Amino acid sequence: MTAVKDSVHDYISLDPLAQDLVDTPEFQRLRHIKQLSTVRLVYPSANHTRFEHSLGVYHLASRALDYLDIGGDRARHVRAAALLHDIGHGPYGHQTEEVIRRRTGAHHDEIGHLLDETDVAAVLVAHDLNPDRIAALVRGDGELGQLVSGELDVDRMDYLVRDAHHTGVPYGTIDTGRLVRELRYRDGELVLADGNVQTAESLLLARALMNGTVYRHHVSRIAGAMLERASERLLDTGEVGIDEFRRMADHDLLVSLSEHVPDLGRRIERRDLYKRAVWAPLASVPASVVEMDYAETRSAAREIADKAGVEPDEVLVDVPSRPSFKESRTRVIVNGVVQRLEEASELVAGLRAAERTQWRIGVYAPAEAADDVRDAAADVLGLAEVRVGLAE
Amino acid sequence: MTAVKDSVHDYISLDPLAQDLVDTPEFQRLRHIKQLSTVRLVYPSANHTRFEHSLGVYHLASRALDYLDIGGDRARHVRAAALLHDIGHGPYGHQTEEVIRRRTGAHHDEIGHLLDETDVAAVLVAHDLNPDRIAALVRGDGELGQLVSGELDVDRMDYLVRDAHHTGVPYGTIDTGRLVRELRYRDGELVLADGNVQTAESLLLARALMNGTVYRHHVSRIAGAMLERASERLLDTGEVGIDEFRRMADHDLLVSLSEHVPDLGRRIERRDLYKRAVWAPLASVPASVVEMDYAETRSAAREIADKAGVEPDEVLVDVPSRPSFKESRTRVIVNGVVQRLEEASELVAGLRAAERTQWRIGVYAPAEAADDVRDAAADVLGLAEVRVGLAE
Amino acid sequence: MTAVKDSVHDYISLDPLAQDLVDTPEFQRLRHIKQLSTVRLVYPSANHTRFEHSLGVYHLASRALDYLDIGGDRARHVRAAALLHDIGHGPYGHQTEEVIRRRTGAHHDEIGHLLDETDVAAVLVAHDLNPDRIAALVRGDGELGQLVSGELDVDRMDYLVRDAHHTGVPYGTIDTGRLVRELRYRDGELVLADGNVQTAESLLLARALMNGTVYRHHVSRIAGAMLERASERLLDTGEVGIDEFRRMADHDLLVSLSEHVPDLGRRIERRDLYKRAVWAPLASVPASVVEMDYAETRSAAREIADKAGVEPDEVLVDVPSRPSFKESRTRVIVNGVVQRLEEASELVAGLRAAERTQWRIGVYAPAEAADDVRDAAADVLGLAEVRVGLAE
Amino acid sequence: MTAVKDSVHDYISLDPLAQDLVDTPEFQRLRHIKQLSTVRLVYPSANHTRFEHSLGVYHLASRALDYLDIGGDRARHVRAAALLHDIGHGPYGHQTEEVIRRRTGAHHDEIGHLLDETDVAAVLVAHDLNPDRIAALVRGDGELGQLVSGELDVDRMDYLVRDAHHTGVPYGTIDTGRLVRELRYRDGELVLADGNVQTAESLLLARALMNGTVYRHHVSRIAGAMLERASERLLDTGEVGIDEFRRMADHDLLVSLSEHVPDLGRRIERRDLYKRAVWAPLASVPASVVEMDYAETRSAAREIADKAGVEPDEVLVDVPSRPSFKESRTRVIVNGVVQRLEEASELVAGLRAAERTQWRIGVYAPAEAADDVRDAAADVLGLAEVRVGLAE
Repeated sequence: MTAVKDSVHDYISLDPLAQDLVDTPEFQRLRHIKQLSTVRLVYPSANHTRFEHSLGVYHLASRALDYLDIGGDRARHVRAAALLHDIGHGPYGHQTEEVIRRRTGAHHDEIGHLLDETDVAAVLVAHDLNPDRIAALVRGDGELGQLVSGELDVDRMDYLVRDAHHTGVPYGTIDTGRLVRELRYRDGELVLADGNVQTAESLLLARALMNGTVYRHHVSRIAGAMLERASERLLDTGEVGIDEFRRMADHDLLVSLSEHVPDLGRRIERRDLYKRAVWAPLASVPASVVEMDYAETRSAAREIADKAGVEPDEVLVDVPSRPSFKESRTRVIVNGVVQRLEEASELVAGLRAAERTQWRIGVYAPAEAADDVRDAAADVLGLAEVRVGLAE
Repeated sequence: MTAVKDSVHDYISLDPLAQDLVDTPEFQRLRHIKQLSTVRLVYPSANHTRFEHSLGVYHLASRALDYLDIGGDRARHVRAAALLHDIGHGPYGHQTEEVIRRRTGAHHDEIGHLLDETDVAAVLVAHDLNPDRIAALVRGDGELGQLVSGELDVDRMDYLVRDAHHTGVPYGTIDTGRLVRELRYRDGELVLADGNVQTAESLLLARALMNGTVYRHHVSRIAGAMLERASERLLDTGEVGIDEFRRMADHDLLVSLSEHVPDLGRRIERRDLYKRAVWAPLASVPASVVEMDYAETRSAAREIADKAGVEPDEVLVDVPSRPSFKESRTRVIVNGVVQRLEEASELVAGLRAAERTQWRIGVYAPAEAADDVRDAAADVLGLAEVRVGLAE
Repeated sequence: MTAVKDSVHDYISLDPLAQDLVDTPEFQRLRHIKQLSTVRLVYPSANHTRFEHSLGVYHLASRALDYLDIGGDRARHVRAAALLHDIGHGPYGHQTEEVIRRRTGAHHDEIGHLLDETDVAAVLVAHDLNPDRIAALVRGDGELGQLVSGELDVDRMDYLVRDAHHTGVPYGTIDTGRLVRELRYRDGELVLADGNVQTAESLLLARALMNGTVYRHHVSRIAGAMLERASERLLDTGEVGIDEFRRMADHDLLVSLSEHVPDLGRRIERRDLYKRAVWAPLASVPASVVEMDYAETRSAAREIADKAGVEPDEVLVDVPSRPSFKESRTRVIVNGVVQRLEEASELVAGLRAAERTQWRIGVYAPAEAADDVRDAAADVLGLAEVRVGLAE
Repeated sequence: MTAVKDSVHDYISLDPLAQDLVDTPEFQRLRHIKQLSTVRLVYPSANHTRFEHSLGVYHLASRALDYLDIGGDRARHVRAAALLHDIGHGPYGHQTEEVIRRRTGAHHDEIGHLLDETDVAAVLVAHDLNPDRIAALVRGDGELGQLVSGELDVDRMDYLVRDAHHTGVPYGTIDTGRLVRELRYRDGELVLADGNVQTAESLLLARALMNGTVYRHHVSRIAGAMLERASERLLDTGEVGIDEFRRMADHDLLVSLSEHVPDLGRRIERRDLYKRAVWAPLASVPASVVEMDYAETRSAAREIADKAGVEPDEVLVDVPSRPSFKESRTRVIVNGVVQRLEEASELVAGLRAAERTQWRIGVYAPAEAADDVRDAAADVLGLAEVRVGLAE
C-alpha cells in the first residue's frame, strides 16, 4: 500500500482503488481548490486544499469502517465515496456554490455528471464499483451514506481539525480518535455509543467557535461576496459558460476574473476589499429582508446604489441564511436509548441562541462610498440600526 | 535573564527576583506536587506539576502586564504573586484541600503563613517587595489581584492548555495569545476588549469540556475520595500533625499512607480502586443529601456500611458541591459597554444547565461489596435511582 | 499594533510600517507564490506561501533585534528588509529563478527594481526609510544584512519550521526560540553565544534531513524540471515577455502554460509527470557532465532524444549543482573564541560527505519512453551506471 | 478493546492480555518511576514516567507487528515483552542501575526474577504465555527480540518522541510512522527497507542531539551522581536491603534518602546541587583515568577530598563510559543489499567524532568548596586542563 504523508493524520495508506482515483484529472483538480477559499485573506496560513482534505476524509472513513467492522464491497464503496465527496465543487468551493446552483440547479454533492464518461468513472468500473451507488453515498443516502454526509460524518471530523491546524486557531480541536471509535449502528442509524453526550457536544462547540472566529469572519464574507458578484458578471459576459465555469480550479477563475471583470478581479487578487457599510444583528433587520431571495437582494443592492449615487456593483448585500445547526440532530445513546443531541444536551438550545446572536447582515462598498451607502441601505432595507462593530 | 524551557510556552524568561524565588525550598517543593493529582490514574501522561504550572502563570502574567503597559513596582508584585500563587497547596493539591481547611480553617490561596520567616519571605524583602501585598494579590484582592485570581486570571489560562497538552485531550486549547492581548482595565475592573464575547465563551467551553472529560472523571474522583479518607485517617492516628501534613509533598504523603494507613495507601499506589456502587444524577437525589456537610456525609457512609455489613471505611460517599461557574461572570466590552458574560452570551445559561446535568453523586466501595452497598445507599440516602453508567 | 494569526508563530504583531507594506500589491502577490512550489506534488499539505513565510521572517527578525538590543532607525530598516526579502521571486519561486537569471542576469534577492516607483517604494519613503539601504540588507550586505541573509539568518529559521509544519515531516524542528536568543555580534559578525555548537549543528542537520526528504525529493525535482522547461518554451513563444513573466504569480503561470505550452502545462496541472530514466550518483557521472552549463545540458538532452527516437522536449536532463553547505560557515563562540562551525564541529565533514553521497543526476522522460531514453542517456552522458532506485 | 489516551500516540488500544498485565502491582509501580529521572531538574516539564512509555512501546510494537504481518502466539509474546521491558528498573531508572548491578550483578533488562511467583507471572500463565520466552525477548534474544531491544527497537522510537514532547526540546522528533512501516526481516535480521538510509540517520541524529541537550545535561549528571552516591550510602547504612531497594519507586527512595542520608537527600529534593569543580574534555584526561572502575573512582574522590580539606562525600568524580553508538549498527537495505548504517552512511563517522568531542569528565562539589576541589582534582587526576564552561 502506498502511503501519503499528511500534516494532520501523519501517514494515510491508499489502497489500489484509491491510488487510481487519486491519479484522475478530476481528483487532481482538487489540488487547486482551496478548502477555505477567501478565509486565507484573514488567516494567511489557511492555504490547504480539498485534495488533502479528501485524503483525510478517506482516511477517517477507513478507520471508522474498521471499528464498525464493515468490510468487503460495502466498505470499498464508502471509501471511494469519501475520497470523491468533494469533486463536484466549483472554483473556490462554497463561494461559487450558489452561482452554480442558480444556473444548473445542482448542489456540489451531486456528482453524478462527473461519474459519466470520465476517468473517474473508468476507474470505478475497472475496480467493479457502481458509480450510481457512489453518487448516492455522497448525497448521504442510506445507512452508509450517513458516514459520508450526515451529522456524524467523517467530512466534518476532518475539516474541523484541518482548518484549526492551518489557521492556527485552536478551537476546532475535536477528538477524532474518540469519535471514530465510538461510532455505532443502531436500527440503521449512525449513532455515538453510550457515554458520549459530551463527545457530541464537542463537535457542536467546535463548529460554533470556528464559525464565529473563522468561517464567518467578516473579511472572508466580504471577499466571498465580491467573488460571487464577480463570478455572476463573468458568466454574464458570455466569455465563459457555466459548464466550463464549474470545472475551473481556483487559479483559472482568478485569471479569468482579472481579464474579464478586472475591477473586482484585481481587488480580490490584491486584497483591496470593500468595507462594511452595514453590519447589523438579526434584531434590527425586518423579517422580509432576512427572507429575501437572490433576485430581491440584487434589486435591493441596485436601489441602494442608486440612492447613494454610486455604481450598481459598488454595493453588495449579503444576507446569510438562518443558522441550520445540523449537528444538533446527532444521535447519541444515553443509558441504552438513542436520543437526538438536542434532547440529550442542555447546551444545544444555548448554542442555537448564541448562533442567532452572531448572525449579521452585511452591506459592503468601497471605503470611500461606505458612509453614503450606509444611509441609503438603512433607508432601503428599513434597518433599526446599522451598527458596524470595528472591533468585531 | 535566565530562561527555562517549557513544553507549553517554549522559553520562559526569569527575572532576578523570580530566579531567587524559584530557588527557595518552598517553591522547589512544587516540583513534587502534581497539577492533576489523581487524574493521572485515568490519563497516564498527566504527570505535570505545580512547579512548571507556576512558571507558566508567571510567564502569562508578565506578558499580560506588558500588553496592559503596567510596569515598575506594581508589576513586580504581580509577577511574584503569580509565581507563588500555589505554594499554599498541600500534598495532592485540591484533593487534600478540604482536609486542611477543616483542621486549620485555611484555604490554599492563603499563603500568609508561608511568607513569615521563610526563605521566600527573605527573598521578597531582599528585593524590596512587600509580603503582605503579595498575599493579598494571591487572594485576588484589588485591581491587580484579578489578574492572579479572578474570572480572567492567568492561572486558568495556563492550566487549561497545560492540562490539555499533558492529558492529550484536545479540549482545553484556548487561545492564550489572544486572551492576554485583549485584556483591558475599565474602572478598575479587568475586562476583555470589544469583539471578544466568543473569546470569553471559549474559556467557559474549554472548562466545561475539560470538567466532564478530565477533571471530574469518575476514576479520578474515586481515587480522590480514597485519598481524602486515607488522609483523615492518617491525621487521626496522630503520627502526623496537620502542620507537617500540609507541608508534605505528594511522595511524602504516599509513603506515609502506605505506612500508617496501609489498606487504602497500598490501593492508591497500585491503582486498586473502589468501584461505583452509586452514580446518580441530581434529579434522583433529595436536596437534603445534596446539601450534606462533611460530618453528615461521614455519618451517612457509616450508616450505609453498617446496613451493608461491611467495614466503615469500605464506603465512601462523594457529594460534589453544585457547579459554581465562576467564568460566567467574566467581564467583556460589548459595543463600548462592560457586561458580564452571562448577560452578553446566550451560551452561559445552556452551559449552566449542562453542568447541572453532568453532576453526579458517587458512593464507592470495594468491587465485591458494591452490590450490597448500592442497596444500602439507596435506602439510607433516599435515592430515586442509583444508575451506574458503565460507559460514562 | 495589528496582529496576524500564524500557524507557526501564533500571533505576529505588525508595526504601522509593516501594515502599510503588507497592503501593497507587490507584497500581496506573495499570497499567490507557494513556498515549496512543486513539493506539494509529494507532500499534499505543503501549500503554504511566501506571504506567511515573509511575515514569519519579519517576526523572528523583530525578536532577534529585541534580544540584540538594536532599535531605532537601524531596526526599522532590518524589519522592512525581512518582510520584503522575497518580493523579488518569480512565479514558483526557486523553480523559475534560473530562467529569469539567464534572461535578466538578476537573482531573486536583487529587489532594487521593485523599490523604484512602486507602491512599496512610496510606503518606504513615507515612513522615512531608504530603499537602497533595504535592497542592500536583502542582499546580505553589512553587519545587519547577516540577520536577513547569511548563515544565521532568520529566513532559514522560519522556513525550516514552517516547511516541517506544513509537510508533516518532523525533521525541520529546530529550536528557533533558542536560536534568536543566542545571537550575538562580535567584531561586526553575527555569531552564536558560547555553548551553542550543538545549536548550530542542529540547523545544519535539519537542513540536511529536509534536503533528502523534502527539498530534493525526486518527484518535486521532476516537476520542477518540467516547469523550468515549459517556462523557457513559454518565453520562446514570445507570447509573454520576461518582465511580465517575472511579475507573474503561480496561478498566472499555470494558466499561461496551459494555454501556450499545453503538453507540459496540462501534465504539471494534473500531476501526470515524467519518470526517471536515469537517477545516478556522483561516482558514476563523468566530471565534465557534472560541470555542464545550461546550454550543454540542453544540447545533451536533444542528443539523447534524437538517439532514443523521441521528441526533443521529452527528455529533461537535471544536473544539480554540487552541495554548497553554507551553514557550515556559521560562526559560534567556543570558550570565548569565534570559530567557524566547520572548525568547531566534527559533524560538518560527515554531513558534507553525506550530501555528496545523496547527490543524483536525473534524466526524465514520459513513462513509455523511459527505457529507450535510459540507454541513450547512458551512452551520450558516458554514465558508469544508471541506477534508478525505485524505493528512493 | 480498552483504549488509553496518550499524549504522544493518541489512543492506545489494549488487548485483554495487556489489560491484565497493566493491572499488576509490578506494572503499576512504573507510574512512580520517571522516565528521565533527574532531567526534570533542568526541564521542569519532563515528569513523564515509565508507565506511559511502556504503553507507547507496546503500541509501536503492535503496529510494527501488523506491518510485518506477524501474528498469533509470536506476536502475543512480543507485545507482552514490549509492555514489560522496563519492569526491571530500580527507582530513578538508569540512575541507580549501576548501584544495583554492583550488588546483584543484574542489569535492568534481566526481568526473570520478576516473572517468578509474581502477579505478572500469574497473568502470563493464565494467558498461555511463556515467561522465559518473554524474559529472553526483553534481553533482545532471537529474531523477534530485536524489535524489543536492538538497534531498531520500538523502545528507542517511543522515548525519543516522548522525551521531546515532555521536555519541549524539538530534536527527538523522528518519524515513527515511517520507521514502523519500513521495518523488514531479511535472513532473520531486522532491517529498514530500501531507500531509508536517511531514515536510519535521523534516528542517530535525534539521539545525538538529545544526548547533548537533554540526556547528558550537566545539571542532570550532577544530580544523578549525587543520587547514586546517596543510594550507596543508604545501602551501606543497612536500613534498606538491596532487594527492597530495587523494588522501590522514586518516591520511596526520595523519602528514604531524606530520612537516612539527609544531607544529600534534602539537597536532591530541593535542587540544592553541587557545582562543577572540573568539566574537562577527553583530550585533557589521562587514559588511565578514563578507564577507572567504580572502586578507583571512589578512591580518587576520597584522595581529592582529603587534599582539598573537605568531607569525603563532598567530592563526586563522574567518568562516563566512552560513547557506544549502538545505532550505527542499524541494518538498512541499499540497492537490495543489507548494510550496516556505518557502512552506508558518511554521517556515522562524523557523529562518532562529535560524540567524542562532547564527552566530559566531571568533578562535583558544594559551591563553596569548588575552587579547592578543582586544584586538588587536577593534581590527583593529572588533568591537562579543568575547563569549566559556564555557558555549556
